[in-house]
Amino acid sequence: MEKVSLPKGTRDFGPTQMAKRLFLINSIKKVFQKYGFQPLETPAMENLSTLTGKYGEEGDQLLFKILNSGDFLKDVEAAKLETRNSKLITSDIAEKGLRYDLTVPFARYVVMNRHEITFPFKRYQIQPVWRADRPQRGRYREFYQCDADVVGTDSLLCETEIILMIKEAFASLGIADFSIKINHRAILSGLAEIVGAAQNESALFVAIDKLDKIGEEKVKEELKAKGFDDASLTLLFDILNFKGTTAEKVDFLTTKFSSSEKGKKGLSDFSEVLSLLKKFGATDEHVEFDISLARGLSYYTGCIFEVKISNVGVGSVSGGGRYDNLTAVFDSKEKSSGVGFSFGIDRLYDAMEELKIFPKEASAASTVLVAHLDEESFTFGLKIAQSLRDRNVACEIYPDQSKIKKQLEYADKKKIPFVIVIGSEEVKTGQLTLKKLESGQQLKLTFQEIADAMQLYK
Amino acid sequence: MEKVSLPKGTRDFGPTQMAKRLFLINSIKKVFQKYGFQPLETPAMENLSTLTGKYGEEGDQLLFKILNSGDFLKDVEAAKLETRNSKLITSDIAEKGLRYDLTVPFARYVVMNRHEITFPFKRYQIQPVWRADRPQRGRYREFYQCDADVVGTDSLLCETEIILMIKEAFASLGIADFSIKINHRAILSGLAEIVGAAQNESALFVAIDKLDKIGEEKVKEELKAKGFDDASLTLLFDILNFKGTTAEKVDFLTTKFSSSEKGKKGLSDFSEVLSLLKKFGATDEHVEFDISLARGLSYYTGCIFEVKISNVGVGSVSGGGRYDNLTAVFDSKEKSSGVGFSFGIDRLYDAMEELKIFPKEASAASTVLVAHLDEESFTFGLKIAQSLRDRNVACEIYPDQSKIKKQLEYADKKKIPFVIVIGSEEVKTGQLTLKKLESGQQLKLTFQEIADAMQLYK
Repeated sequence: MEKVSLPKGTRDFGPTQMAKRLFLINSIKKVFQKYGFQPLETPAMENLSTLTGKYGEEGDQLLFKILNSGDFLKDVEAAKLETRNSKLITSDIAEKGLRYDLTVPFARYVVMNRHEITFPFKRYQIQPVWRADRPQRGRYREFYQCDADVVGTDSLLCETEIILMIKEAFASLGIADFSIKINHRAILSGLAEIVGAAQNESALFVAIDKLDKIGEEKVKEELKAKGFDDASLTLLFDILNFKGTTAEKVDFLTTKFSSSEKGKKGLSDFSEVLSLLKKFGATDEHVEFDISLARGLSYYTGCIFEVKISNVGVGSVSGGGRYDNLTAVFDSKEKSSGVGFSFGIDRLYDAMEELKIFPKEASAASTVLVAHLDEESFTFGLKIAQSLRDRNVACEIYPDQSKIKKQLEYADKKKIPFVIVIGSEEVKTGQLTLKKLESGQQLKLTFQEIADAMQLYK
Repeated sequence: MEKVSLPKGTRDFGPTQMAKRLFLINSIKKVFQKYGFQPLETPAMENLSTLTGKYGEEGDQLLFKILNSGDFLKDVEAAKLETRNSKLITSDIAEKGLRYDLTVPFARYVVMNRHEITFPFKRYQIQPVWRADRPQRGRYREFYQCDADVVGTDSLLCETEIILMIKEAFASLGIADFSIKINHRAILSGLAEIVGAAQNESALFVAIDKLDKIGEEKVKEELKAKGFDDASLTLLFDILNFKGTTAEKVDFLTTKFSSSEKGKKGLSDFSEVLSLLKKFGATDEHVEFDISLARGLSYYTGCIFEVKISNVGVGSVSGGGRYDNLTAVFDSKEKSSGVGFSFGIDRLYDAMEELKIFPKEASAASTVLVAHLDEESFTFGLKIAQSLRDRNVACEIYPDQSKIKKQLEYADKKKIPFVIVIGSEEVKTGQLTLKKLESGQQLKLTFQEIADAMQLYK
């Protein structure tokens, strides 16, 4: 036998996983659609000129590149080839690469279609992306991203609706215990200003971002090494460590930010989001003002979000924020402010498995198997199966004349919950035997009674 | 501005197309699930050792290969590199390739998971595939395939259920005028036998397969050139040109096949499928016995299908057949007989566009836009929007304080059918103005009346 395997870091999703993944993805899709977001799909392959330089040097290394078709070496200069310098030769032999995220393809789509698009443009996109990263637990070379963005408006309504969508998605997934951490880039800038680090913002944000992972002491050390003095650090951690309700935090920062225009702007945006939330008739339950939330991506310019589920061993399952100019990488003239967020499908999946909250309906199994004892029963069963399908019940009839034991095993292994067993008695009387596999319970019912009962399990 | 473009032969699917594609794909998915087929997804990348040699020499050329990460030239022998022979070097610098179809990955999945799978295994798979083909009208380098297969049984029930599924899928898509052409490899073999071409089967099948395209005379020429004599050709076309009902065709062939065991076996299988169809309570409407249907793929061994829609300019939109051994390419010991078919998503899409039968619901637009004349109306509108969403109505509120004309234009361009216009009068009285954009019709209604009416448009 030829040995077959999967490429490192890639996965098959069999029926059981697929059913759960589809439940997850479809639940989120429904929420996106309810809020007016529209689906977009872009190709797996992009020109490397579209992708390169958008993810930093490390990102460029992690792009999967596609070898040109045909005689790809034909036009490579001999001298260049002799250097054996892979990096140098790559662009000669590979023009295309696999999508690394959904943001750059989205920006490309907006630039290419800006005359047809009606702004504000609300799109969602759920597709796999590929990264030539070293595979490890929870990190794959192919994984799905699930993004929603609005571009073409700076209304804070969008931020507020993101909060509503996250809450609604989690409600439909059955996730009850979670927090939506919110901060604002301008609040961070205000913080930098008042601790005298306005010129050194990014060092400050990078350090703060690690608080969760390495703790206060290590962050202080790092900042000291970068030239922060004791007075600044004391002031900084007085603010970062302030405990209180959201309103108390806002009040506290208002006094601190009396001399920082940026800080005031950030606070005012954040308060407006909370106010809009109330006007929508929603509460700020699950919303947490987290002054230490920085998020790595430097293109954020306004509100930033991050969502964590309590009591599970996965990191943040959703995040996002406002950016000033999505399409800047392609088009410096036209500004397209927007705000976006994404759900981490793999992490949400893991969290729901850990919490054991996937509903029973998240199954790919048929609802009913029609089993049969002889050929006459088989023939009789065909009509039964088809009548159930006519009533939208997912149904199979065992295809071969096999022992009843084998047929029941088939249902059991495939987790088909109900079996209708047909023998000569059933054919004669029309009274059918319905077996519930989980409990072993057996009932004699008419077809109509079975069909009615199955409506509950569709 | 940096010039951006899509790789040749690839496409973006914007909201309008996506809504139609999702309608199409979801309709088919529902049918698959109703008949007990379960979803499978495999990675976009496979090891080239899995893909190479499975699609003939031409297919190997059309595989997209992925450049190894890092210093890919490191281990290429200097002498080899100096040859500048691209073909020779490919396997040294590319280990992985993009999926070319869904059949080989499915076979790989079955081989790798054969101890966990419960047979008969019914899976469906709807994913893109990639081919480095020369792009032309209707032929893309990235396109979706949509396959369903049953492996692990040779029951003709499976063939019959495929007919039922095709009929049901087309009914749910609103395609009324189509034919499911059926033939059987053994009938073709019988035909070869009685015209004295048992040793030259494949030449015969290849020629017959072209009847549709090049006509009888050209096919005759081709066969003459391959050594067929006049008597054989007369007999052959007497059979191929026989007109009659399915029953008449079966009777006619029964007399012709009196000396061909293969021919008899083919006829008996075919008759059994028709008989099972009747036992399911279904008719043979749309089913057409087409003795000249050969289908190119040589791995078919039993019934073969092809579906054409009448009065549209696209080729066959679905096809399939029974094969003896799906996994033979990986595992010569274990035999896995099965039967599969697939829908051509792109062609079905084109056909439905041509017939103008995509339903209005196949839209990605929200059902309602809440428009507002001033800030007070905006605030009032937030609760209206959220209450509609609570009732599962897809709804947007215009995010900015803009002129009403701009807001209506937004709805119009996005094909949002209804707009609720809120001004100070509406805030005061609670009587809302509902505008139906298509007709311009305007009604004064309470929120509850609007919410009830929108249930019909969800």
